[in-house]
Amino acid sequence: MSALLTDLYQITMLQTYLDEDMTAPAVFELFVRKLPAQRNFLVAAGMEQVLRFLETFSFSEAELAWLREHGNFSSRVLEHLRTLRFKGDVDAMPEGTVFFADEPIIRITAPLPQAQLMESRLLNLAHFETLIASKAARAVLAASGRRLVDFGMRRAHGAEAALLAARAAYLAGFDGTATAEAGRRFGIPVFGTMAHSFVQAHASEQAAFEAFARVRPNRPTFLVDTYDTEAAVAKLIDVAPALACDGIAIGGVRLDSGDLAAHAKAVRGLLDAAGLKDVTIFASGNLDEHRIAALLADAAPIDGFGVGTALDTSSDVPAIDAVYKLQSYAGVARRKRSEGKATWPGIKQVVRHLGNNGCIERDVVQLEVEPRDGEALLRPCMRGGRRVGAAPTLEESRAYHTRQMALLPAALRVLQPAREAYRVDISPGLRTLAREVDAAVS
Amino acid sequence: MSALLTDLYQITMLQTYLDEDMTAPAVFELFVRKLPAQRNFLVAAGMEQVLRFLETFSFSEAELAWLREHGNFSSRVLEHLRTLRFKGDVDAMPEGTVFFADEPIIRITAPLPQAQLMESRLLNLAHFETLIASKAARAVLAASGRRLVDFGMRRAHGAEAALLAARAAYLAGFDGTATAEAGRRFGIPVFGTMAHSFVQAHASEQAAFEAFARVRPNRPTFLVDTYDTEAAVAKLIDVAPALACDGIAIGGVRLDSGDLAAHAKAVRGLLDAAGLKDVTIFASGNLDEHRIAALLADAAPIDGFGVGTALDTSSDVPAIDAVYKLQSYAGVARRKRSEGKATWPGIKQVVRHLGNNGCIERDVVQLEVEPRDGEALLRPCMRGGRRVGAAPTLEESRAYHTRQMALLPAALRVLQPAREAYRVDISPGLRTLAREVDAAVS
Repeated sequence: MSALLTDLYQITMLQTYLDEDMTAPAVFELFVRKLPAQRNFLVAAGMEQVLRFLETFSFSEAELAWLREHGNFSSRVLEHLRTLRFKGDVDAMPEGTVFFADEPIIRITAPLPQAQLMESRLLNLAHFETLIASKAARAVLAASGRRLVDFGMRRAHGAEAALLAARAAYLAGFDGTATAEAGRRFGIPVFGTMAHSFVQAHASEQAAFEAFARVRPNRPTFLVDTYDTEAAVAKLIDVAPALACDGIAIGGVRLDSGDLAAHAKAVRGLLDAAGLKDVTIFASGNLDEHRIAALLADAAPIDGFGVGTALDTSSDVPAIDAVYKLQSYAGVARRKRSEGKATWPGIKQVVRHLGNNGCIERDVVQLEVEPRDGEALLRPCMRGGRRVGAAPTLEESRAYHTRQMALLPAALRVLQPAREAYRVDISPGLRTLAREVDAAVS
Repeated sequence: MSALLTDLYQITMLQTYLDEDMTAPAVFELFVRKLPAQRNFLVAAGMEQVLRFLETFSFSEAELAWLREHGNFSSRVLEHLRTLRFKGDVDAMPEGTVFFADEPIIRITAPLPQAQLMESRLLNLAHFETLIASKAARAVLAASGRRLVDFGMRRAHGAEAALLAARAAYLAGFDGTATAEAGRRFGIPVFGTMAHSFVQAHASEQAAFEAFARVRPNRPTFLVDTYDTEAAVAKLIDVAPALACDGIAIGGVRLDSGDLAAHAKAVRGLLDAAGLKDVTIFASGNLDEHRIAALLADAAPIDGFGVGTALDTSSDVPAIDAVYKLQSYAGVARRKRSEGKATWPGIKQVVRHLGNNGCIERDVVQLEVEPRDGEALLRPCMRGGRRVGAAPTLEESRAYHTRQMALLPAALRVLQPAREAYRVDISPGLRTLAREVDAAVS
């Protein structure tokens, strides 16, 4: 991706910093100021994409030429940009970590001009994957072990959103995606059945089912709601013996419209009466975690769910208040005090404490230099522009996230807003530093 | 972008169609089933990206290798995909056209396998740009001629979303974007000032302002809310004479937090009292069309607005009900009848009628073959895989959109839901065809 995928002001500020020799180390932290009312926890994601962005960052000649022509930048700056590579340090929460407001999830330490320059794309990546992983984790809670597949590509916000949403959802416990390229790029399992147009294009539903079974003989799933759901299932039951003679066992049916619970019950009855107890029922069509929970509360015999638009756009909360703020420059703690947007200054760590029941109980946002008596969540990922240790695989991060969710208190494992927010304390050292910084500025 | 950026089932269906020799011409139409309650009209966008996608579509060897390994596809299908190029016809509304529910905005006519294969990415592109152009047009209505700049990259859903949102917003009347790459790629004007971190990194606000003015001497805009807005403006007024001696005139100030109307009034008073009447006030910070309208209703002296997250994610409506449906195959009209999701069959045209006041008054969705007595909105864009005529430039499409908005009835030019929806009639010919199609299927 182009190095110009940034806000122009980042490059303007870089020029000013160079002109003023302000190249001492700066520390920026990425955190969420406030949890949305509809989220009891968030799931950190996108760190792998952020690290890849940082380690491959460079300007191409074409990008520099555009800046020369359009940006009013000095030759000195353009020369600087030509050889600029990210040489800083990164500390971050592992992907899949559950986190809360005010907790830094990524900390960048680098010379001020380059730490600043990375802001826009770093947020663009980490915000989006965190947004989707946090949404997906709720569907996973609601589905209670039933299969979940990402169906959202067509209404995701562009190509990268579709691919990263598939990745973030898998990280958070989905079983796979319908998007082929996400399978190729990230090794995610890819699922797929047929579209309504497939049924419509055939002379009859039965002809469509038979043709599909020949191409996908390994337990195919059939879409049954193009015209009349129960009638379609009856037709499928009619062709089942012929398919069985060809060695084809029907895998499942997909419902995509109408009253899904009622249809699922009726279809289950038809299938069972025909001795097709192994045929699964998969549901899709404007689903989200609330509809999944309602269907299961209604005892709908559904074995899996396709979640599309609501997942890939995080439709109830399409953005979270993630920011990237300067916390220290040249060894001096800094703080923004804008009304309603003040931040905690200094280089911080998040320390997590478990309760007696084995669940997480309380986090402390504290200074990195303060003593700690719990698990430190920010861990070294990059030093001097090079990765520290091997990157976890997506499967490893997914397994780690599953363990994180097992530690979540029951009070937060609900779709409704929790009665009480998770406890995040600000350490005494941090409060003292904030007062000192304010006193120094005024 | 990879040809595998599609739902896997598209390729499965393609194989089935080939196996069955179902390669006759199919007609698919892309339309929105229902306008969101928060939108009185939509703005068609993304056609240029769709056409580019279609004219450059091809599978790479790496993509074919992945399909061979993971997809269970026949060699015949893989050979077919290797040489597959889009050879179909495209008719579409010009970008920037105002449209309503049930109106096709893109119509694809091509052999069934390839018309089907294009669905996922075609929707992914056209849905997103239409979504953002429709949101942006509302901010343009609210801002009544004041400057509007896209600030949304950091919370846009990935790279492509940021770039296409900048494009769609410019198409719909925004003045520019902060995203440099959108400037390079689409020729959109790029704007930028400074971040809070820039002020924080300096020993004092005044030092930050002076350093910035030297790097951006051409009417610079200063961010004044890092610590205390009015105090910052007072400092700026203090340095104004020295800057003026260096030939630097202050261009503007940017407010980004707190009560923007109150601050704008106070700041305007300070600036005017200091003889700085030409200095403009630019506002940002969680703005959307409603907040812009409220600020202007409150007589806030604001000359321009930066709109970020709300624009780039279309936060109140992060997805619209855009679909791509088979309407005809091998010369026979088709229709999906799924509950609540039935579509109008056949090859259609949208015909627009003006009222006596010169505004648009009524559209008719009719069969392409029915006689028409108004302006046909779907126009030939591609024949046999090649473009028809020269593509309009983004500037031309933007100017066309401005003319479209001038034709919009006053009752729809409001931010609140209109009392009455715009009138879209279904032609008698279309109703008759729907009955015939239903009779043939049952």
